[in-house]
Amino acid sequence: MSSVQDVNPRVRRIRTPVGLQSLAARITEQLSQGGQKPFQKVTDVSSGDPHRAGMPPLSFVRQVLAVCLYPELLGEDSLPLDVRQRAQKLLEACNGGSIGSYSPSSCGIPQIQKSVAEFITRRDAGIPSDPENIVLCSGSQKVLSLVLHLLSRGEGLTQTGVLIPLPCPHTLPMLLDEEGLTPLPYRLLEDQGWALEPDQLHGALRAARGRCEPRAIYISNPGNPTGHVQDRKTIREVIRFASSEGLVLLVEEVFQDSVFGRDKTFLSYKKVLFEMGEPYSDTVELVSLHSISTARMGECGLRGGYMEVVNIDPDVQQALKNMQAPSSPPILPQLALEVMVNPPAPGDPSEKEYTQEILRMDDILAQNARRACEFLNDLPGVSCQPAMAGLFLYPRLNLPAQMLEEAEALGVEADVLFCQRFLEEERVCFGPGCENGHDRNDLHVR
Amino acid sequence: MSSVQDVNPRVRRIRTPVGLQSLAARITEQLSQGGQKPFQKVTDVSSGDPHRAGMPPLSFVRQVLAVCLYPELLGEDSLPLDVRQRAQKLLEACNGGSIGSYSPSSCGIPQIQKSVAEFITRRDAGIPSDPENIVLCSGSQKVLSLVLHLLSRGEGLTQTGVLIPLPCPHTLPMLLDEEGLTPLPYRLLEDQGWALEPDQLHGALRAARGRCEPRAIYISNPGNPTGHVQDRKTIREVIRFASSEGLVLLVEEVFQDSVFGRDKTFLSYKKVLFEMGEPYSDTVELVSLHSISTARMGECGLRGGYMEVVNIDPDVQQALKNMQAPSSPPILPQLALEVMVNPPAPGDPSEKEYTQEILRMDDILAQNARRACEFLNDLPGVSCQPAMAGLFLYPRLNLPAQMLEEAEALGVEADVLFCQRFLEEERVCFGPGCENGHDRNDLHVR
Ligand SMILES: Cc1ncc(COP(=O)(O)O)c(C=O)c1O
Ligand SMILES: Cc1ncc(COP(=O)(O)O)c(C=O)c1O
Repeated sequence: MSSVQDVNPRVRRIRTPVGLQSLAARITEQLSQGGQKPFQKVTDVSSGDPHRAGMPPLSFVRQVLAVCLYPELLGEDSLPLDVRQRAQKLLEACNGGSIGSYSPSSCGIPQIQKSVAEFITRRDAGIPSDPENIVLCSGSQKVLSLVLHLLSRGEGLTQTGVLIPLPCPHTLPMLLDEEGLTPLPYRLLEDQGWALEPDQLHGALRAARGRCEPRAIYISNPGNPTGHVQDRKTIREVIRFASSEGLVLLVEEVFQDSVFGRDKTFLSYKKVLFEMGEPYSDTVELVSLHSISTARMGECGLRGGYMEVVNIDPDVQQALKNMQAPSSPPILPQLALEVMVNPPAPGDPSEKEYTQEILRMDDILAQNARRACEFLNDLPGVSCQPAMAGLFLYPRLNLPAQMLEEAEALGVEADVLFCQRFLEEERVCFGPGCENGHDRNDLHVR
Repeated sequence: MSSVQDVNPRVRRIRTPVGLQSLAARITEQLSQGGQKPFQKVTDVSSGDPHRAGMPPLSFVRQVLAVCLYPELLGEDSLPLDVRQRAQKLLEACNGGSIGSYSPSSCGIPQIQKSVAEFITRRDAGIPSDPENIVLCSGSQKVLSLVLHLLSRGEGLTQTGVLIPLPCPHTLPMLLDEEGLTPLPYRLLEDQGWALEPDQLHGALRAARGRCEPRAIYISNPGNPTGHVQDRKTIREVIRFASSEGLVLLVEEVFQDSVFGRDKTFLSYKKVLFEMGEPYSDTVELVSLHSISTARMGECGLRGGYMEVVNIDPDVQQALKNMQAPSSPPILPQLALEVMVNPPAPGDPSEKEYTQEILRMDDILAQNARRACEFLNDLPGVSCQPAMAGLFLYPRLNLPAQMLEEAEALGVEADVLFCQRFLEEERVCFGPGCENGHDRNDLHVR
């Protein structure tokens, strides 16, 4: 490896992130050393990290995990009884009764796979979920990279292509690079609040012809970074499309618990798939992702998530297990996930506080999304669709010609330059839309 | 992915683990349902998981992490002052002051990279370590898979080969499968306590000719599963060999803090490399791994580890960073690592208890290794080299002809059959030597 030319060509292909984070860190450092700037700290909104932006964690979650870590606290009367009972129950599910042991299986703790399956069944009005189909992992991005790795094969014309939305989540292009997969963008309609238009899917597929072999379609619903919530009709059309084209459906549903748009509700792809019945319900290969990092939990630092796989061949599932065998997922995020899917029940000592915290958070989220949207629409050269869910807004920039020329001269993307300036002047770190797949003719930030 | 034939051929190549764990789980289940067996539970010694086998965690570690998780405990007077101060300091190093935020960088929290570098510098008698060269990750196996992924390239004759010890750690073959790397075994000498004989390295390299392109050598020191501790002379010879053959040195040093053999001490490859001076010290590419999962900490469930890279090209290091960018490492294991490299100092309130716990653990480890070795050597058909370090013993089996024939008839490896029987009868789950690379002519268990 004496030079980067010697390493795995796939690794060489992974794009380097734009690196506003390091600029943000530098400014934070300067501020802490008493620079004469109007703001005291940098607010980074680019990565959808609620705790970083000051959202408090859910007390019940943290209390349960603290007791699991330090079981002496089981005798601590100042902690609510249901906290201690839950911790006791979770510890019993761990090997050796300790969070210090490896996961019993490479797909996680069986009791927690079961809890997740039960949660999904409740969520989807009784449509059954099999615990064997739940794979626990260190974050939904990691889960996704496992599946993309499975899908990765072929070279040149036979290489796997994946249909992805434009704009897409900012981490997705790096994950595709890493697996050598060809992105096949389908355009979301900005003037319809970033709705998905099925015609665009057919267009993306046509454009792939003679370039690669499309094997999957990636959906983000509720949308990251758009905040759009898909309706039943759209979901049915996407499922029919995946079915007729033989594509695996990869659905990222991490914002499912944070829909705030009026008259909007979250519908899972799994539910709609089973409503449609055969032949869809027993043939379409579906992978759905969820995470403890998002909206309500916001536990990005723990690294926990899961996927549910539907209609996936048992041998393929075994292959997935083997991939995680040498390095099983961490325990604490699995326990946090259990709490996420089983919050305190009515009548439990912690229930009132928990519900209040959730309501407060939902309120803040909805209000912030509305206010930030108004604020952005008032800025000259900025226009923003309202978000219906999630943590992001994705405004369009109409930058003055002078700034476009300056970016050109500096050899950077204009949205990156805008983000740098905004960070330096306003101490707010946006993420440039080029990371979400948009190019210089279509400038955005998130 | 309608069948396993459709997935990434690399994933198809990963071997399925032998699966004694599921037998162990089944027996545990039966026992918990009141079977009439002589033992109450199954003891699994196959994966080197101390807490699972009943080793208690270090109190200071768990206390600090519990406070970081639930900062209300900062005001809890029943917790030692240094616990709360440490937690406060660690929280300040986290984005947003919360363990719920993503890592500030994809290689971990900068202050903890610095703490690790300082620990290495102290350990190696002042030989400097650069925090930029420390990559924090969710477990040493994950770190290793990142490096193996970097090294993976070529096809057929140009495919990367890696020299690995025989026996090797049981997780290594799966990691090599996953990256499509060719294992090139060099034999350790059982009758010399599993010492490494440099001639064997040359032999392994010769055997590789015309098969693949050797690009790295993997070393486990102190040895997993052998418990052997390498001396300075051996390490120097390995370094000279790596240098003359242009191989990257991948050194797993996770048992560095658990050497108990009389007159044995741990010497790091980095220290010996720098003692040797130029041209070695500024050319040999070295990657050293350490983990919080092993011996003293035993925190396998948290998933934390690090690597130090030496003489690695900066662009290659950037590529490593990019690999972790979409999914940064979890926070809590990084904090546990900080405590591991900075235990309570003399005079701190927790120091006495911490030291007692460590001494007690070291005692138990050394005694268990001695007693288990005596016990094994007293069994008919078993002979075992004493271990000098680590968590494993690796006895040789001389099984009766009848058992060998039975295994043949059943179509399983004889060591696997032995492990199954031992598990069913004695409720102890060994790992079969076939997972450590040994074949039917050379039967072992760990
Ligand atoms: C689309 C998407 N889903 C989920 C997440 C959360 O990922 P994880 O669960 O790995 O923290 C992110 C974070 O960037 C994201 O972009
Ligand atoms: C060689 C070796 N090193 C380290 C470990 C610990 O790995 P980790 O740090 O990923 O828990 C293991 C566990 O199986 C191992 O076999």
